[in-house]
Amino acid sequence: MGVKVLTVKEDILSVNDANAKANRERADKHHVVMINVMSSPGAGKTTLITRTINKFKEKIRIAVVEGDIASTIDADKISKLGIPVVQINTAGACHLDANMMRGALDALALGEIDVIIVENVGNLICTAEFALGAHKKVMLLSVPEGDDKPHKYPLMFTEADVVLVSKTDVMPYFDFDEAAFSKAVNGLNPSGKIFPVSAKTGEGLDAWFAWFEDAIAGTAGVV
Amino acid sequence: MGVKVLTVKEDILSVNDANAKANRERADKHHVVMINVMSSPGAGKTTLITRTINKFKEKIRIAVVEGDIASTIDADKISKLGIPVVQINTAGACHLDANMMRGALDALALGEIDVIIVENVGNLICTAEFALGAHKKVMLLSVPEGDDKPHKYPLMFTEADVVLVSKTDVMPYFDFDEAAFSKAVNGLNPSGKIFPVSAKTGEGLDAWFAWFEDAIAGTAGVV
Repeated sequence: MGVKVLTVKEDILSVNDANAKANRERADKHHVVMINVMSSPGAGKTTLITRTINKFKEKIRIAVVEGDIASTIDADKISKLGIPVVQINTAGACHLDANMMRGALDALALGEIDVIIVENVGNLICTAEFALGAHKKVMLLSVPEGDDKPHKYPLMFTEADVVLVSKTDVMPYFDFDEAAFSKAVNGLNPSGKIFPVSAKTGEGLDAWFAWFEDAIAGTAGVV
Repeated sequence: MGVKVLTVKEDILSVNDANAKANRERADKHHVVMINVMSSPGAGKTTLITRTINKFKEKIRIAVVEGDIASTIDADKISKLGIPVVQINTAGACHLDANMMRGALDALALGEIDVIIVENVGNLICTAEFALGAHKKVMLLSVPEGDDKPHKYPLMFTEADVVLVSKTDVMPYFDFDEAAFSKAVNGLNPSGKIFPVSAKTGEGLDAWFAWFEDAIAGTAGVV
């Protein structure tokens, strides 16, 4: 049975890759940059996205795609910021896929958007396997999760363009070895950037904001 | 494609359920109780299991099955406690399944074991879908993950016999509404127990230990 499952999975991933490529081409045609934000549940994706929108919304036309198994909690929070939001409920699926992302693109006025920030389902594993067509992949690893996670969940850390170490404000209350963490991430992903941030206090966010602006400028020249 | 995937998934789950049933019968034959422990990455499963082993190891013969995508970090920690440990590396899969669990049972001397604690892969979604044959399902939701998780990841909270709210020692540093959390869990799972615990300070562990001992006695009469 193992082999059968693997074949099915490869078929699914191959179809997904083709859909992701189509999403990317569609976004490129409209000069829209797509950023896929991933993490475990509760690592602070929504708070980071909120901070980023508030920083840039006068200057960059941002839309958000919210992926959740159930509920519209995060979409409700984001829509209060006055920007376009599409909620995808995956009905049990543990990650967004390129087909779902295509549906989100259908629902957005791409000619009026510079950047789509995608908040993926809270999952450190499956989300890394399914391309959406995004230009950049951003992951958060929160301090309470611990510094050993790159060893246990290597694919996500290998795939990410940026690793944000979130919730640094609670660093004093946890045993988190920043040097060991950076070494482990660099071992998997030598070109990946690591930014420690606290979306609560604002600590470290300037480095993230600078990366975000550069990534958009470098990718689509919209800034 | 959506329908095709669903069919495949149903086939996989149906095969898995048959394997899980066989695991359960095999464990019952040997009067072994299996407890499946699940959570997001870094919620404190290993620390809780370590505490539980140290509490009971003179009285109950415990073995541990460690599920990880990669690494033997947790198995190495547990094996220092002098009890049998089997590490399952899932090679990318986001959860243990009943077939993997059968392999773990093959590797253990079931006649010399009272309880098998299974530490599943860190994942709040897929682990809840795949039965292993366990007699009890225990989940941890750590305070830093936030009180809204039952709304976003309902299946896990619905399936669990016990929900441990872990890392209560850092409660002062997070906005975690315990009443709202309990209400949400009870809405999904009226008979599920909720125990707030800190494996670091020991706070609340007595209630968990009492449940653990009762569960074993009630399930297999081994205590």
